[in-house]
Amino acid sequence: MAIMGAASGRQRERIVSATGRLFRDKGYHGTSMADIGKAVGLEKGSLYAHIAAKHDVLRELVERGAAYFMDALAPVAAAREPSHVKLRLAMRAHLGVVAAHPDLAAVFLQEWRRLEGEDRERIGKLRDEYEAIWRGLVDEGICDGTLRPDVDRRFAALLFLSAGNWAYQWFDPYGALSSHDVADRFTDHILTGLTPRTSVDR
Amino acid sequence: MAIMGAASGRQRERIVSATGRLFRDKGYHGTSMADIGKAVGLEKGSLYAHIAAKHDVLRELVERGAAYFMDALAPVAAAREPSHVKLRLAMRAHLGVVAAHPDLAAVFLQEWRRLEGEDRERIGKLRDEYEAIWRGLVDEGICDGTLRPDVDRRFAALLFLSAGNWAYQWFDPYGALSSHDVADRFTDHILTGLTPRTSVDR
Repeated sequence: MAIMGAASGRQRERIVSATGRLFRDKGYHGTSMADIGKAVGLEKGSLYAHIAAKHDVLRELVERGAAYFMDALAPVAAAREPSHVKLRLAMRAHLGVVAAHPDLAAVFLQEWRRLEGEDRERIGKLRDEYEAIWRGLVDEGICDGTLRPDVDRRFAALLFLSAGNWAYQWFDPYGALSSHDVADRFTDHILTGLTPRTSVDR
Repeated sequence: MAIMGAASGRQRERIVSATGRLFRDKGYHGTSMADIGKAVGLEKGSLYAHIAAKHDVLRELVERGAAYFMDALAPVAAAREPSHVKLRLAMRAHLGVVAAHPDLAAVFLQEWRRLEGEDRERIGKLRDEYEAIWRGLVDEGICDGTLRPDVDRRFAALLFLSAGNWAYQWFDPYGALSSHDVADRFTDHILTGLTPRTSVDR
């Protein structure tokens, strides 16, 4: 029975994973239970034995995505490093999740809006918490002097998050640049700016 | 007859506009012809007299979005200004479209993936052209010396585009900051960077 349980767990995992890919490619509403069944080679009846409803899988995928992003960022936020270093590590962590879990990242960043009621509220709060950690890193940088005192914490954090979040639309895991390279290029540009460092009038 | 034609045109416009809002809120696949009919107070039969199919409206909305972004950027790209000024104006132009046409912007930036075949290919090309104009602005900046020579044109352009594109997810047209304010804050941070201008080791 224990073995059957494990096999069933693997089967369910296979279904959830295939569903993530479908939600990413076709959207939550564009994916039917029949599509999921076809992707994993199961009749609808067998499918319902593993997943009760499509929105349960959406909630599960969005929560997994949230957990990946949060688990990657938390140790960086707690690290004892100057905060410009922590911002670099945070960007690597964020893009590392986008690269390693592209389906989850896309579902978390885009399809979470298809959640409703309490589910949507809970995930909205998680997203706020995640963004608050980024603003905290910027605050640290302003305090420890590695960032300029006139930096706008909200927009500085948004700049990192926008670059990191939009990457799910274009980042190619098989491309020439690793997520680490991409993170460092964004971080270099964001920290140093685009204008010459000697410029006074920008 | 001419008056009937104009009235019919207004009715169609009302339908297309309501559909944009629905596509933004519920996604293309999450929006049914019945939803559209309900939003504009028309029976399905009358609705089909104005729009033949849902995907026709998606194509039209995505093309309108593309045209707005392109029409806003083109005069900036052609302006005779130092390119750090042009980048600022370009950011204002882009966020101006996000603010003035939030439904079109969201459909263009997100739901375009639901297009298929030739439609998707054509829009993909338009998106590439739009991004190429941004890379051109960065190139100009490197040439005219308003940007550092070691700036990575692709990532610098991506930084502007990521900040501008992600804004459709959070920008509030009724918020305290206008799209112009938001554009300038992003541009200031991107051009000047977050670290002190006297720093040498970033």
